[in-house]
Amino acid sequence: MEKSGSRWALCDREMTMIPSKVNFSEKFSKLPDEDYSVRIVAKMNDYEFKLVKFKGEFVWHSHPDTDETFIILDGRMMMHFKDKLVEIKSGEMIVIPKGMEHKPTSEEGYKALLIEPEGVANTGDVKSEMTIKKIEWI
Amino acid sequence: MEKSGSRWALCDREMTMIPSKVNFSEKFSKLPDEDYSVRIVAKMNDYEFKLVKFKGEFVWHSHPDTDETFIILDGRMMMHFKDKLVEIKSGEMIVIPKGMEHKPTSEEGYKALLIEPEGVANTGDVKSEMTIKKIEWI
Repeated sequence: MEKSGSRWALCDREMTMIPSKVNFSEKFSKLPDEDYSVRIVAKMNDYEFKLVKFKGEFVWHSHPDTDETFIILDGRMMMHFKDKLVEIKSGEMIVIPKGMEHKPTSEEGYKALLIEPEGVANTGDVKSEMTIKKIEWI
Repeated sequence: MEKSGSRWALCDREMTMIPSKVNFSEKFSKLPDEDYSVRIVAKMNDYEFKLVKFKGEFVWHSHPDTDETFIILDGRMMMHFKDKLVEIKSGEMIVIPKGMEHKPTSEEGYKALLIEPEGVANTGDVKSEMTIKKIEWI
């Protein structure tokens, strides 16, 4: 029996705690059918793994205290920097350095695994209509 | 021009530093043709991303100070725990909790992205012929 919102599964009669794996396709099937949705799927030390589905234009922002990692699982992302545009497609990753302004956009849409410390705001130092107060586990 | 062993690329005449993406297939093509090889491909804060190619039976070990994440990119891994066996295949991930004994095995082989703090020994608390003193960047 998997405990929802947890990386743990209770699996035998002795209630031994063993780690449960995450299947990305299965988790994505539970995300809301919206252009932008994000859910936490796992935790490693004080870092969270989030599945993100995105289509459109995000807001310019930076994360003043941390790097941030995108691993593209499906589709294509254009990552805008002030001086550069980087295309990142399925099977590729990028680490956005701490404090660096960036803006993801995608015409066709992408699915990604996002890795960053817990509690990092999705729009970083910027408040916008895209800001999510509390990201849920799935 | 990409600086080898770095997440940075020098890209314009003003020498602005912009992050470079990592293409997994391209990096795997540079790994030695051995049953076990591992190289660092990116860094996020004080965490390293390592590409791992593995076939066979690893050693039982644990990491006393940190969780460890495997994202399977190709093939299939059997992750052995003392009370449980978990099959993890392409498109799936697992977080091994701090201090938990585990042993990856794979008959067919797998390719994975491994995420853990820098300096973590590949065989954790165990010394074996599989222990790698210093993992290189690729």
